[in-house]
Amino acid sequence: MPTLVIANKCYSSWSLRPWLLMKQLGVAFDEIMIPLDLPDTKEKVLRHSPAGKVPILIDGRATVWESLAIMEYVSETFAPAWPEDREARAMARSVAAEMHAGFMALRSACPMNLGKKYASKDRGEAVARDVARFSEIVRQARERFGAGGPFLFGAFSAADAMYAPLATRLETYSIALDRETRAYVDAILSLPAFQEWRSEALKESWIVDADEADEEPIENYRNAA
Amino acid sequence: MPTLVIANKCYSSWSLRPWLLMKQLGVAFDEIMIPLDLPDTKEKVLRHSPAGKVPILIDGRATVWESLAIMEYVSETFAPAWPEDREARAMARSVAAEMHAGFMALRSACPMNLGKKYASKDRGEAVARDVARFSEIVRQARERFGAGGPFLFGAFSAADAMYAPLATRLETYSIALDRETRAYVDAILSLPAFQEWRSEALKESWIVDADEADEEPIENYRNAA
Repeated sequence: MPTLVIANKCYSSWSLRPWLLMKQLGVAFDEIMIPLDLPDTKEKVLRHSPAGKVPILIDGRATVWESLAIMEYVSETFAPAWPEDREARAMARSVAAEMHAGFMALRSACPMNLGKKYASKDRGEAVARDVARFSEIVRQARERFGAGGPFLFGAFSAADAMYAPLATRLETYSIALDRETRAYVDAILSLPAFQEWRSEALKESWIVDADEADEEPIENYRNAA
Repeated sequence: MPTLVIANKCYSSWSLRPWLLMKQLGVAFDEIMIPLDLPDTKEKVLRHSPAGKVPILIDGRATVWESLAIMEYVSETFAPAWPEDREARAMARSVAAEMHAGFMALRSACPMNLGKKYASKDRGEAVARDVARFSEIVRQARERFGAGGPFLFGAFSAADAMYAPLATRLETYSIALDRETRAYVDAILSLPAFQEWRSEALKESWIVDADEADEEPIENYRNAA
């Protein structure tokens, strides 16, 4: 059975991606959690991978890091993770890679934080542009390939796993969405695997200051925080 | 025949990646070049892809953007682009994805610029860390999988195409390298497909100010600049 090394479920957006994919595809795995931002975090991560970052998938002699690479490995080795249709798959990989290196304004202004909810407010033009681009991706993917289900390419795929942390940010920071984007975000947040992740996140007690907004939350879902 | 939409060969590191891969694998394609940073650049790019960024691969009804997604498409559709060995392939995709969203200090301090060469100088700790990480990747990939050739995984693969622009930066900015990394960089720079790209780059006359270092070059390879 492969082992997935992840960080705190409340905050680690990168960890959520392959975890959600594997759970949702029914791939069994062991889990090692290394909490972020503690004195021994770096050393513990480096024990598993020289890149020094989670998530890491260990499967026998194969060590795979970076969400996208893990997803390709899962898809080749355990269960198909990309849309079956060739053109849909091409677009799915394009939007997944766009997420991998993009949406910087939204990611930096609105860190993933499943423990809180904040009021809606103006978060600047760059964030608004990222949200608009996300809505455009949802609209275009669903218009062309979304007939078979509520996800980007109909059925759940690796592309949805890549965008899941972004969906949580839109929810956490009460960002206004058009109807179609709202429905897509709700589909992600309703996934059984996401519900499981979130419920485990809310039991965590670590607080990562760097990922806590300097605002009064309107909801605090964790007793600890 | 597919069409690859790229930007200036002198500066566009992202364009170089899939172009080099396809040329080196012998995949025939048409080329559309959209020069960077001109008044109509954005509009021209948007005509081909809503993500608004090059490179873009158009193949019939499939539009693929983002280097990594293009490489997966090329590998599935035209010619295998990843190592055949499963563990090597897992590591190749990991280091390719690490490049896709990483090495920010090196990329921002040392923009790709094939038209010039600059003297060696201290470019800061963050750049030094990126160079050290690159050397570590070269050492680990070659130690484990490099027996069959001079590239990361022996034979040339998509992982090398991802690191090719970084190899040019190390050369352009005269960055000191250990022997093994130097040999790898030279293997990339000696590729026939890279030589072809470079010779076309040196015929270009556009100057992109944002990518020109504020330093006196020790070589100027373009008449135009």
